Amino acid sequence: MKLPDFFESDRAAIEAALDKFLPPVEIQPSSIHEAMRYSVFAGGKRLRPIMCVESARMFSDPPDAAIPAACTFEFIHTYSLIHDDLPALDNDDLRRGKPTCHKKFGEPIAILAGDALLTLAFETLAKSPIEPQRGIQIVSEVARAAGTVRGMIGGQVADLEAERRPIELLALEFIHRSKTAALIRTSIVAGAIAGGAEEQDVERLRSFGEYIGWAFQVVDDILDVEESSAALGKTAGKDQAQQKATYPALLGLERSREVATELAGKALSELDFYGARGDRLRQLGEFLVARRA
Amino acid sequence: MKLPDFFESDRAAIEAALDKFLPPVEIQPSSIHEAMRYSVFAGGKRLRPIMCVESARMFSDPPDAAIPAACTFEFIHTYSLIHDDLPALDNDDLRRGKPTCHKKFGEPIAILAGDALLTLAFETLAKSPIEPQRGIQIVSEVARAAGTVRGMIGGQVADLEAERRPIELLALEFIHRSKTAALIRTSIVAGAIAGGAEEQDVERLRSFGEYIGWAFQVVDDILDVEESSAALGKTAGKDQAQQKATYPALLGLERSREVATELAGKALSELDFYGARGDRLRQLGEFLVARRA
Repeated sequence: MKLPDFFESDRAAIEAALDKFLPPVEIQPSSIHEAMRYSVFAGGKRLRPIMCVESARMFSDPPDAAIPAACTFEFIHTYSLIHDDLPALDNDDLRRGKPTCHKKFGEPIAILAGDALLTLAFETLAKSPIEPQRGIQIVSEVARAAGTVRGMIGGQVADLEAERRPIELLALEFIHRSKTAALIRTSIVAGAIAGGAEEQDVERLRSFGEYIGWAFQVVDDILDVEESSAALGKTAGKDQAQQKATYPALLGLERSREVATELAGKALSELDFYGARGDRLRQLGEFLVARRA
Repeated sequence: MKLPDFFESDRAAIEAALDKFLPPVEIQPSSIHEAMRYSVFAGGKRLRPIMCVESARMFSDPPDAAIPAACTFEFIHTYSLIHDDLPALDNDDLRRGKPTCHKKFGEPIAILAGDALLTLAFETLAKSPIEPQRGIQIVSEVARAAGTVRGMIGGQVADLEAERRPIELLALEFIHRSKTAALIRTSIVAGAIAGGAEEQDVERLRSFGEYIGWAFQVVDDILDVEESSAALGKTAGKDQAQQKATYPALLGLERSREVATELAGKALSELDFYGARGDRLRQLGEFLVARRA
Protein backbone atom coordinates (compact mmCIF):
# COMPACT_ATOMS: atom_id res chain seq x y z
CA MET A 1 0.00 0.00 0.00
CA LYS A 2 1.38 3.33 -1.07
CA LEU A 3 0.89 6.68 0.56
CA PRO A 4 -1.97 8.65 -1.07
CA ASP A 5 -0.63 10.38 -4.18
CA PHE A 6 -1.20 13.90 -2.99
CA PHE A 7 1.36 13.38 -0.24
CA GLU A 8 4.07 13.05 -2.85
CA SER A 9 4.35 16.80 -3.20
CA ASP A 10 4.70 17.09 0.60
CA ARG A 11 7.46 14.55 0.47
CA ALA A 12 9.26 16.39 -2.31
CA ALA A 13 9.10 19.65 -0.34
CA ILE A 14 10.40 17.87 2.77
CA GLU A 15 13.28 16.18 0.93
CA ALA A 16 14.35 19.56 -0.40
CA ALA A 17 14.11 21.14 3.05
CA LEU A 18 16.04 18.31 4.71
CA ASP A 19 18.79 18.86 2.16
CA LYS A 20 18.74 22.60 2.83
CA PHE A 21 18.95 22.28 6.62
CA LEU A 22 21.66 19.60 6.67
CA PRO A 23 25.18 21.06 6.49
CA PRO A 24 26.78 20.30 3.10
CA VAL A 25 29.50 17.66 2.96
CA GLU A 26 31.94 20.36 1.82
CA ILE A 27 31.85 21.94 5.30
CA GLN A 28 34.48 20.57 7.68
CA PRO A 29 34.55 18.06 9.25
CA SER A 30 33.11 16.29 6.18
CA SER A 31 32.83 12.84 7.75
CA ILE A 32 30.09 13.80 10.21
CA HIS A 33 28.05 15.63 7.58
CA GLU A 34 28.40 12.66 5.25
CA ALA A 35 27.19 10.31 8.01
CA MET A 36 24.24 12.55 8.90
CA ARG A 37 23.18 12.78 5.27
CA TYR A 38 23.68 9.06 4.69
CA SER A 39 21.24 8.18 7.46
CA VAL A 40 18.69 10.92 6.74
CA PHE A 41 18.60 10.00 3.05
CA ALA A 42 18.60 6.22 3.59
CA GLY A 43 15.03 6.01 2.36
CA GLY A 44 12.50 6.86 5.06
CA LYS A 45 8.85 7.42 4.19
CA ARG A 46 8.89 10.86 5.93
CA LEU A 47 5.66 10.00 7.73
CA ARG A 48 6.28 12.31 10.69
CA PRO A 49 7.14 15.37 8.58
CA ILE A 50 4.16 14.72 6.29
CA MET A 51 1.85 14.50 9.31
CA CYS A 52 3.29 17.75 10.61
CA VAL A 53 2.76 19.53 7.29
CA GLU A 54 -0.77 18.18 6.80
CA SER A 55 -1.72 19.14 10.34
CA ALA A 56 -0.49 22.67 9.62
CA ARG A 57 -2.40 22.79 6.34
CA MET A 58 -5.68 22.49 8.24
CA PHE A 59 -5.01 25.96 9.65
CA SER A 60 -2.94 27.66 6.95
CA ASP A 61 -2.57 26.67 3.34
CA PRO A 62 0.13 26.54 2.02
CA PRO A 63 1.68 25.17 5.23
CA ASP A 64 5.18 26.48 4.54
CA ALA A 65 5.67 27.80 8.08
CA ALA A 66 5.63 24.19 9.34
CA ILE A 67 8.45 22.96 7.09
CA PRO A 68 11.31 23.52 9.56
CA ALA A 69 9.30 21.83 12.34
CA ALA A 70 8.51 18.96 9.97
CA CYS A 71 12.24 18.41 9.33
CA THR A 72 12.87 18.44 13.08
CA PHE A 73 10.88 15.21 13.44
CA GLU A 74 12.80 13.46 10.70
CA PHE A 75 16.10 14.49 12.27
CA ILE A 76 14.98 13.20 15.67
CA HIS A 77 13.56 10.00 14.22
CA THR A 78 16.82 9.38 12.33
CA TYR A 79 19.03 10.10 15.35
CA SER A 80 17.00 7.61 17.40
CA LEU A 81 17.47 4.93 14.73
CA ILE A 82 21.23 5.53 14.53
CA HIS A 83 21.64 5.19 18.28
CA ASP A 84 19.21 2.23 18.50
CA ASP A 85 21.23 0.36 15.91
CA LEU A 86 24.52 0.71 17.86
CA PRO A 87 26.22 -2.50 19.07
CA ALA A 88 25.41 -1.64 22.71
CA LEU A 89 21.71 -1.36 21.89
CA ASP A 90 20.01 -3.37 19.12
CA ASN A 91 23.29 -4.16 17.33
CA ASP A 92 21.84 -4.00 13.84
CA ASP A 93 24.03 -4.21 10.75
CA LEU A 94 21.35 -3.32 8.24
CA ARG A 95 18.56 -0.80 8.07
CA ARG A 96 16.33 -0.60 5.02
CA GLY A 97 18.74 -2.94 3.29
CA LYS A 98 21.74 -0.68 3.75
CA PRO A 99 24.60 -0.84 6.26
CA THR A 100 23.67 1.00 9.45
CA CYS A 101 25.49 4.23 10.24
CA HIS A 102 28.08 2.62 12.54
CA LYS A 103 28.75 -0.19 10.03
CA LYS A 104 29.39 2.40 7.35
CA PHE A 105 31.21 5.13 9.31
CA GLY A 106 32.35 3.43 12.52
CA GLU A 107 30.90 3.68 16.00
CA PRO A 108 32.49 7.00 17.06
CA ILE A 109 31.06 8.87 14.08
CA ALA A 110 27.69 7.13 14.43
CA ILE A 111 27.35 8.20 18.07
CA LEU A 112 28.28 11.77 17.17
CA ALA A 113 26.07 11.80 14.05
CA GLY A 114 23.09 10.86 16.23
CA ASP A 115 23.98 13.61 18.68
CA ALA A 116 24.40 16.04 15.81
CA LEU A 117 21.00 15.26 14.29
CA LEU A 118 19.28 15.79 17.64
CA THR A 119 21.10 19.11 17.96
CA LEU A 120 20.28 20.08 14.37
CA ALA A 121 16.62 19.34 15.08
CA PHE A 122 16.48 22.25 17.51
CA GLU A 123 18.59 24.53 15.35
CA THR A 124 16.12 23.89 12.53
CA LEU A 125 13.11 24.48 14.76
CA ALA A 126 14.51 27.88 15.68
CA LYS A 127 14.36 28.81 11.98
CA SER A 128 10.57 28.45 11.83
CA PRO A 129 9.04 31.61 10.34
CA ILE A 130 6.37 31.81 13.06
CA GLU A 131 5.60 33.93 16.13
CA PRO A 132 8.41 33.38 18.67
CA GLN A 133 5.84 32.46 21.31
CA ARG A 134 4.69 29.56 19.11
CA GLY A 135 8.29 28.67 18.36
CA ILE A 136 9.15 28.30 22.04
CA GLN A 137 5.99 26.29 22.60
CA ILE A 138 7.06 23.85 19.88
CA VAL A 139 10.61 23.60 21.31
CA SER A 140 9.05 22.61 24.62
CA GLU A 141 6.63 20.10 23.06
CA VAL A 142 9.38 18.48 20.97
CA ALA A 143 11.87 18.24 23.84
CA ARG A 144 9.30 16.62 26.10
CA ALA A 145 8.16 14.18 23.41
CA ALA A 146 11.76 13.15 22.73
CA GLY A 147 12.68 12.96 26.43
CA THR A 148 12.47 10.56 29.34
CA VAL A 149 9.14 11.43 30.97
CA ARG A 150 6.50 9.68 28.84
CA GLY A 151 8.70 10.57 25.85
CA MET A 152 10.73 8.63 23.32
CA ILE A 153 13.83 7.95 25.42
CA GLY A 154 11.68 6.92 28.40
CA GLY A 155 9.91 4.42 26.13
CA GLN A 156 13.20 3.07 24.79
CA VAL A 157 14.52 2.51 28.30
CA ALA A 158 11.31 0.80 29.42
CA ASP A 159 11.44 -1.31 26.26
CA LEU A 160 15.05 -2.35 26.96
CA GLU A 161 14.18 -3.26 30.51
CA ALA A 162 11.14 -5.29 29.43
CA GLU A 163 13.16 -7.60 27.17
CA ARG A 164 13.11 -11.20 28.30
CA ARG A 165 10.64 -10.46 31.10
CA PRO A 166 6.91 -10.98 31.41
CA ILE A 167 5.07 -7.69 30.99
CA GLU A 168 1.55 -6.48 31.76
CA LEU A 169 -0.66 -4.67 29.29
CA LEU A 170 -0.38 -1.35 31.15
CA ALA A 171 3.42 -1.46 30.98
CA LEU A 172 3.28 -2.32 27.29
CA GLU A 173 0.94 0.62 26.68
CA PHE A 174 3.42 2.87 28.47
CA ILE A 175 6.22 1.68 26.19
CA HIS A 176 4.28 2.10 22.96
CA ARG A 177 2.82 5.48 23.88
CA SER A 178 6.21 6.81 25.05
CA LYS A 179 8.52 5.23 22.51
CA THR A 180 6.44 5.86 19.39
CA ALA A 181 3.19 7.74 19.95
CA ALA A 182 4.78 10.72 21.74
CA LEU A 183 6.85 11.82 18.74
CA ILE A 184 4.11 11.12 16.18
CA ARG A 185 1.58 12.98 18.34
CA THR A 186 3.97 15.88 18.63
CA SER A 187 4.62 16.07 14.90
CA ILE A 188 0.87 16.71 14.56
CA VAL A 189 0.73 19.10 17.51
CA ALA A 190 3.71 21.07 16.23
CA GLY A 191 2.16 21.33 12.78
CA ALA A 192 -1.04 22.70 14.26
CA ILE A 193 0.85 25.23 16.39
CA ALA A 194 3.02 26.31 13.45
CA GLY A 195 -0.10 26.61 11.31
CA GLY A 196 -1.64 29.01 13.79
CA ALA A 197 -4.25 26.70 15.36
CA GLU A 198 -6.19 27.81 18.44
CA GLU A 199 -5.65 25.90 21.66
CA GLN A 200 -8.75 23.73 21.38
CA ASP A 201 -7.76 22.65 17.89
CA VAL A 202 -4.28 21.81 19.13
CA GLU A 203 -5.82 19.63 21.84
CA ARG A 204 -8.13 17.85 19.38
CA LEU A 205 -5.18 17.08 17.13
CA ARG A 206 -3.09 16.05 20.10
CA SER A 207 -5.67 13.38 20.81
CA PHE A 208 -5.74 12.34 17.15
CA GLY A 209 -1.95 12.11 17.16
CA GLU A 210 -1.77 10.13 20.39
CA TYR A 211 -4.18 7.44 19.18
CA ILE A 212 -2.82 7.24 15.66
CA GLY A 213 0.74 7.02 16.97
CA TRP A 214 -0.24 4.28 19.37
CA ALA A 215 -2.06 2.39 16.62
CA PHE A 216 1.02 2.81 14.43
CA GLN A 217 3.20 0.93 16.92
CA VAL A 218 0.64 -1.86 17.41
CA VAL A 219 0.60 -2.27 13.62
CA ASP A 220 4.40 -2.31 13.66
CA ASP A 221 4.32 -5.19 16.14
CA ILE A 222 1.81 -7.06 13.98
CA LEU A 223 3.83 -6.57 10.80
CA ASP A 224 6.96 -7.86 12.51
CA VAL A 225 5.18 -11.17 13.12
CA GLU A 226 3.26 -11.40 9.85
CA GLU A 227 6.16 -10.49 7.63
CA SER A 228 8.42 -13.09 9.14
CA SER A 229 5.87 -15.92 9.08
CA ALA A 230 4.80 -15.05 5.55
CA ALA A 231 8.26 -15.24 4.08
CA LEU A 232 9.01 -18.96 4.29
CA GLY A 233 12.51 -19.85 5.45
CA LYS A 234 13.16 -16.40 6.88
CA THR A 235 14.30 -16.18 10.47
CA ALA A 236 11.62 -15.38 13.01
CA GLY A 237 10.59 -11.73 13.60
CA LYS A 238 13.17 -9.51 15.20
CA ASP A 239 10.90 -8.64 18.12
CA GLN A 240 10.36 -12.29 18.91
CA ALA A 241 14.06 -13.09 18.60
CA GLN A 242 14.90 -10.28 21.03
CA GLN A 243 11.93 -11.24 23.23
CA LYS A 244 10.61 -7.73 22.92
CA ALA A 245 7.38 -6.73 24.58
CA THR A 246 4.77 -6.59 21.81
CA TYR A 247 1.00 -6.66 21.42
CA PRO A 248 0.93 -9.97 19.50
CA ALA A 249 3.14 -11.60 22.16
CA LEU A 250 0.77 -10.45 24.88
CA LEU A 251 -2.66 -10.52 23.23
CA GLY A 252 -2.22 -12.65 20.11
CA LEU A 253 -2.46 -11.47 16.52
CA GLU A 254 -6.23 -11.34 16.22
CA ARG A 255 -6.83 -9.24 19.32
CA SER A 256 -3.88 -7.03 18.36
CA ARG A 257 -5.55 -6.28 15.03
CA GLU A 258 -8.74 -5.37 16.87
CA VAL A 259 -6.82 -3.05 19.19
CA ALA A 260 -5.18 -1.31 16.23
CA THR A 261 -8.59 -0.80 14.61
CA GLU A 262 -10.10 0.52 17.84
CA LEU A 263 -7.25 2.96 18.38
CA ALA A 264 -7.39 4.18 14.80
CA GLY A 265 -11.15 4.65 15.18
CA LYS A 266 -10.64 6.82 18.25
CA ALA A 267 -8.03 8.83 16.38
CA LEU A 268 -10.13 9.39 13.27
CA SER A 269 -13.22 10.38 15.27
CA GLU A 270 -11.29 13.45 16.44
CA LEU A 271 -11.25 14.62 12.82
CA ASP A 272 -15.07 14.44 12.41
CA PHE A 273 -15.32 17.97 13.71
CA TYR A 274 -13.38 19.25 10.70
CA GLY A 275 -15.37 17.55 7.91
CA ALA A 276 -13.64 17.66 4.54
CA ARG A 277 -10.86 19.85 5.94
CA GLY A 278 -9.63 16.76 7.79
CA ASP A 279 -9.55 14.55 4.70
CA ARG A 280 -5.82 14.48 4.11
CA LEU A 281 -4.98 13.79 7.74
CA ARG A 282 -7.73 11.14 7.75
CA GLN A 283 -6.24 9.41 4.71
CA LEU A 284 -2.82 9.56 6.26
CA GLY A 285 -4.20 8.02 9.46
CA GLU A 286 -5.92 5.25 7.50
CA PHE A 287 -2.70 4.57 5.62
CA LEU A 288 -0.72 4.23 8.84
CA VAL A 289 -2.86 1.37 10.12
CA ALA A 290 -3.54 -0.35 6.77
CA ARG A 291 0.10 -0.36 5.59
CA ARG A 292 1.88 -3.67 5.00
CA ALA A 293 5.42 -2.45 5.64
CA MET B 1 43.14 27.86 43.15
CA LYS B 2 39.52 28.18 44.15
CA LEU B 3 36.80 30.10 42.41
CA PRO B 4 36.28 33.56 43.93
CA ASP B 5 34.05 33.27 47.00
CA PHE B 6 31.19 35.30 45.65
CA PHE B 7 30.59 32.68 42.97
CA GLU B 8 29.61 30.19 45.67
CA SER B 9 26.11 31.62 45.87
CA ASP B 10 25.78 31.29 42.08
CA ARG B 11 26.83 27.70 42.36
CA ALA B 12 24.31 27.00 45.10
CA ALA B 13 21.51 28.51 43.01
CA ILE B 14 22.61 26.46 40.01
CA GLU B 15 22.80 23.20 41.95
CA ALA B 16 19.25 23.78 43.19
CA ALA B 17 18.03 24.56 39.69
CA LEU B 18 19.75 21.51 38.17
CA ASP B 19 17.98 19.39 40.76
CA LYS B 20 14.66 21.05 39.95
CA PHE B 21 14.96 20.61 36.19
CA LEU B 22 16.15 16.97 36.30
CA PRO B 23 13.27 14.48 36.51
CA PRO B 24 13.16 12.84 39.97
CA VAL B 25 14.32 9.23 40.28
CA GLU B 26 10.79 8.29 41.36
CA ILE B 27 9.51 8.93 37.83
CA GLN B 28 9.63 5.88 35.57
CA PRO B 29 11.89 4.65 34.10
CA SER B 30 14.03 5.27 37.19
CA SER B 31 17.28 3.94 35.75
CA ILE B 32 17.68 6.72 33.20
CA HIS B 33 16.90 9.46 35.70
CA GLU B 34 19.35 7.92 38.15
CA ALA B 35 22.04 7.86 35.46
CA MET B 36 21.38 11.44 34.40
CA ARG B 37 21.56 12.65 37.99
CA TYR B 38 24.66 10.57 38.73
CA SER B 39 26.58 12.25 35.95
CA VAL B 40 25.25 15.79 36.48
CA PHE B 41 26.03 15.59 40.22
CA ALA B 42 29.43 13.90 39.83
CA GLY B 43 31.15 17.07 40.97
CA GLY B 44 31.59 19.59 38.20
CA LYS B 45 32.69 23.16 38.95
CA ARG B 46 29.64 24.56 37.08
CA LEU B 47 31.89 27.01 35.23
CA ARG B 48 29.61 27.36 32.21
CA PRO B 49 26.44 28.04 34.21
CA ILE B 50 28.28 30.50 36.45
CA MET B 51 29.59 32.35 33.40
CA CYS B 52 26.06 32.45 32.01
CA VAL B 53 24.62 33.85 35.24
CA GLU B 54 27.39 36.43 35.69
CA SER B 55 27.05 37.57 32.11
CA ALA B 56 23.31 38.06 32.69
CA ARG B 57 23.97 39.97 35.93
CA MET B 58 25.74 42.69 33.97
CA PHE B 59 22.37 43.57 32.44
CA SER B 60 19.87 42.56 35.12
CA ASP B 61 20.50 41.94 38.77
CA PRO B 62 19.37 39.50 40.16
CA PRO B 63 20.01 37.41 37.05
CA ASP B 64 17.26 34.86 37.77
CA ALA B 65 15.94 34.88 34.19
CA ALA B 66 19.21 33.27 33.07
CA ILE B 67 19.03 30.29 35.44
CA PRO B 68 17.31 27.87 33.01
CA ALA B 69 19.78 28.81 30.25
CA ALA B 70 22.63 28.34 32.72
CA CYS B 71 21.47 24.79 33.47
CA THR B 72 21.25 24.09 29.73
CA PHE B 73 25.04 24.43 29.45
CA GLU B 74 25.69 22.03 32.30
CA PHE B 75 23.34 19.46 30.77
CA ILE B 76 25.07 19.77 27.40
CA HIS B 77 28.54 19.68 28.94
CA THR B 78 27.59 16.56 30.92
CA TYR B 79 26.05 14.78 27.93
CA SER B 80 29.22 15.42 25.95
CA LEU B 81 31.36 13.92 28.72
CA ILE B 82 29.14 10.81 28.99
CA HIS B 83 29.36 10.16 25.26
CA ASP B 84 33.08 11.02 25.10
CA ASP B 85 33.80 8.47 27.81
CA LEU B 86 32.08 5.62 25.92
CA PRO B 87 34.23 2.64 24.87
CA ALA B 88 33.91 3.59 21.19
CA LEU B 89 35.29 7.06 21.91
CA ASP B 90 37.77 7.81 24.72
CA ASN B 91 36.97 4.57 26.61
CA ASP B 92 37.39 6.08 30.06
CA ASP B 93 36.52 4.14 33.21
CA LEU B 94 36.87 7.03 35.62
CA ARG B 95 35.85 10.66 35.63
CA ARG B 96 36.56 12.87 38.61
CA GLY B 97 37.58 9.73 40.49
CA LYS B 98 34.22 8.02 40.01
CA PRO B 99 33.16 5.30 37.57
CA THR B 100 31.99 6.83 34.29
CA CYS B 101 28.30 6.60 33.42
CA HIS B 102 28.67 3.48 31.26
CA LYS B 103 30.80 1.72 33.87
CA LYS B 104 28.15 2.39 36.47
CA PHE B 105 24.93 1.91 34.46
CA GLY B 106 26.05 0.01 31.35
CA GLU B 107 26.53 1.29 27.83
CA PRO B 108 22.89 1.28 26.67
CA ILE B 109 21.76 3.50 29.54
CA ALA B 110 24.82 5.75 29.18
CA ILE B 111 24.11 6.38 25.49
CA LEU B 112 20.48 7.16 26.28
CA ALA B 113 21.35 9.28 29.34
CA GLY B 114 23.57 11.44 27.14
CA ASP B 115 20.77 11.77 24.59
CA ALA B 116 18.35 12.59 27.38
CA LEU B 117 20.52 15.35 28.84
CA LEU B 118 20.89 16.99 25.44
CA THR B 119 17.11 16.83 25.03
CA LEU B 120 16.52 18.13 28.55
CA ALA B 121 18.83 21.05 27.79
CA PHE B 122 16.34 22.37 25.23
CA GLU B 123 13.31 21.56 27.37
CA THR B 124 14.90 23.61 30.15
CA LEU B 125 15.78 26.47 27.83
CA ALA B 126 12.12 26.70 26.81
CA LYS B 127 11.27 27.39 30.46
CA SER B 128 13.27 30.63 30.53
CA PRO B 129 11.09 33.47 31.85
CA ILE B 130 12.16 35.83 29.07
CA GLU B 131 10.68 37.35 25.91
CA PRO B 132 9.98 34.49 23.45
CA GLN B 133 12.02 36.29 20.78
CA ARG B 134 15.07 36.12 23.07
CA GLY B 135 14.24 32.52 23.94
CA ILE B 136 14.29 31.45 20.30
CA GLN B 137 17.50 33.38 19.75
CA ILE B 138 19.14 31.43 22.59
CA VAL B 139 17.83 28.09 21.25
CA SER B 140 19.49 28.91 17.94
CA GLU B 141 22.78 30.03 19.56
CA VAL B 142 22.96 26.93 21.76
CA ALA B 143 22.13 24.47 18.97
CA ARG B 144 24.78 25.97 16.71
CA ALA B 145 27.42 26.02 19.46
CA ALA B 146 26.72 22.36 20.27
CA GLY B 147 26.56 21.31 16.60
CA THR B 148 28.88 20.33 13.80
CA VAL B 149 29.62 23.64 12.04
CA ARG B 150 32.30 25.30 14.17
CA GLY B 151 30.48 23.84 17.17
CA MET B 152 31.23 21.25 19.84
CA ILE B 153 30.52 18.11 17.83
CA GLY B 154 32.46 19.45 14.86
CA GLY B 155 35.42 20.01 17.18
CA GLN B 156 35.15 16.53 18.64
CA VAL B 157 35.16 14.97 15.18
CA ALA B 158 38.13 17.05 14.06
CA ASP B 159 39.89 16.11 17.32
CA LEU B 160 39.24 12.39 16.72
CA GLU B 161 40.54 12.66 13.19
CA ALA B 162 43.67 14.52 14.28
CA GLU B 163 44.81 11.79 16.69
CA ARG B 164 48.08 10.21 15.70
CA ARG B 165 48.55 12.62 12.82
CA PRO B 166 50.69 15.72 12.40
CA ILE B 167 48.57 18.83 12.65
CA GLU B 168 49.05 22.49 11.77
CA LEU B 169 48.35 25.37 14.10
CA LEU B 170 45.30 26.51 12.12
CA ALA B 171 43.71 23.06 12.40
CA LEU B 172 44.45 22.96 16.12
CA GLU B 173 42.84 26.35 16.55
CA PHE B 174 39.77 25.06 14.73
CA ILE B 175 39.53 22.12 17.12
CA HIS B 176 39.94 24.17 20.28
CA ARG B 177 37.59 26.92 19.22
CA SER B 178 34.92 24.45 18.07
CA LYS B 179 35.23 21.77 20.74
CA THR B 180 35.52 24.03 23.76
CA ALA B 181 35.30 27.74 23.06
CA ALA B 182 31.97 27.57 21.19
CA LEU B 183 29.99 26.33 24.20
CA ILE B 184 31.78 28.57 26.72
CA ARG B 185 31.29 31.58 24.44
CA THR B 186 27.63 30.72 24.07
CA SER B 187 27.08 30.37 27.81
CA ILE B 188 28.17 34.00 28.05
CA VAL B 189 26.17 35.09 25.00
CA ALA B 190 23.03 33.34 26.26
CA GLY B 191 23.41 34.97 29.67
CA ALA B 192 23.64 38.38 28.05
CA ILE B 193 20.59 37.74 25.88
CA ALA B 194 18.58 36.38 28.81
CA GLY B 195 19.65 39.38 30.89
CA GLY B 196 18.25 41.75 28.26
CA ALA B 197 21.50 43.00 26.73
CA GLU B 198 21.43 45.10 23.55
CA GLU B 199 23.01 43.64 20.43
CA GLN B 200 26.30 45.49 20.72
CA ASP B 201 26.76 44.25 24.28
CA VAL B 202 25.99 40.71 23.15
CA GLU B 203 28.71 41.03 20.49
CA ARG B 204 31.25 42.41 22.95
CA LEU B 205 30.59 39.51 25.31
CA ARG B 206 30.67 37.06 22.43
CA SER B 207 34.21 38.16 21.76
CA PHE B 208 35.09 37.91 25.47
CA GLY B 209 33.60 34.39 25.54
CA GLU B 210 35.38 33.25 22.42
CA TYR B 211 38.84 34.27 23.66
CA ILE B 212 38.33 33.08 27.23
CA GLY B 213 36.95 29.74 26.01
CA TRP B 214 39.92 29.32 23.70
CA ALA B 215 42.36 30.23 26.47
CA PHE B 216 40.55 27.74 28.72
CA GLN B 217 41.33 24.86 26.35
CA VAL B 218 44.97 25.90 25.91
CA VAL B 219 45.29 25.90 29.71
CA ASP B 220 43.63 22.46 29.77
CA ASP B 221 46.30 21.18 27.39
CA ILE B 222 49.05 22.69 29.57
CA LEU B 223 47.64 21.23 32.78
CA ASP B 224 47.45 17.78 31.21
CA VAL B 225 51.22 17.90 30.67
CA GLU B 226 52.21 19.65 33.90
CA GLU B 227 50.07 17.50 36.15
CA SER B 228 51.49 14.30 34.79
CA SER B 229 55.14 15.35 34.91
CA ALA B 230 54.72 16.86 38.39
CA ALA B 231 53.28 13.73 39.94
CA LEU B 232 56.28 11.39 39.98
CA GLY B 233 55.56 7.81 38.91
CA LYS B 234 52.22 8.71 37.37
CA THR B 235 51.59 7.64 33.78
CA ALA B 236 52.10 10.30 31.15
CA GLY B 237 49.32 12.78 30.36
CA LYS B 238 46.21 11.39 28.73
CA ASP B 239 46.50 13.71 25.73
CA GLN B 240 50.03 12.54 25.06
CA ALA B 241 49.10 8.87 25.50
CA GLN B 242 46.28 9.27 22.98
CA GLN B 243 48.52 11.40 20.75
CA LYS B 244 45.93 14.17 20.86
CA ALA B 245 46.52 17.43 19.09
CA THR B 246 47.49 19.95 21.79
CA TYR B 247 49.23 23.31 22.10
CA PRO B 248 52.18 21.98 24.12
CA ALA B 249 52.72 19.17 21.60
CA LEU B 250 52.80 21.70 18.78
CA LEU B 251 54.37 24.81 20.36
CA GLY B 252 56.00 23.58 23.56
CA LEU B 253 54.96 24.47 27.10
CA GLU B 254 56.50 27.91 27.30
CA ARG B 255 54.97 29.24 24.09
CA SER B 256 51.62 27.63 25.04
CA ARG B 257 51.63 29.57 28.30
CA GLU B 258 52.28 32.77 26.36
CA VAL B 259 49.40 31.99 23.99
CA ALA B 260 47.04 31.39 26.92
CA THR B 261 48.06 34.73 28.43
CA GLU B 262 47.63 36.55 25.12
CA LEU B 263 44.19 35.05 24.55
CA ALA B 264 43.08 35.87 28.09
CA GLY B 265 44.33 39.42 27.60
CA LYS B 266 42.24 39.81 24.46
CA ALA B 267 39.23 38.44 26.31
CA LEU B 268 39.58 40.69 29.33
CA SER B 269 40.11 43.81 27.23
CA GLU B 270 36.52 43.40 25.99
CA LEU B 271 35.38 44.02 29.56
CA ASP B 272 37.22 47.36 29.89
CA PHE B 273 34.20 49.12 28.45
CA TYR B 274 32.12 48.06 31.46
CA GLY B 275 34.45 49.20 34.26
CA ALA B 276 33.50 47.84 37.68
CA ARG B 277 30.34 46.26 36.25
CA GLY B 278 32.61 43.72 34.54
CA ASP B 279 34.50 42.79 37.74
CA ARG B 280 32.89 39.43 38.39
CA LEU B 281 33.23 38.23 34.80
CA ARG B 282 36.82 39.54 34.85
CA GLN B 283 37.64 37.55 37.99
CA LEU B 284 36.01 34.49 36.51
CA GLY B 285 38.08 34.91 33.35
CA GLU B 286 41.27 35.32 35.38
CA PHE B 287 40.43 32.20 37.35
CA LEU B 288 39.94 30.15 34.20
CA VAL B 289 43.48 30.76 32.99
CA ALA B 290 45.23 30.73 36.38
CA ARG B 291 43.61 27.50 37.64
CA ARG B 292 45.78 24.48 38.41
CA ALA B 293 43.11 21.80 37.81
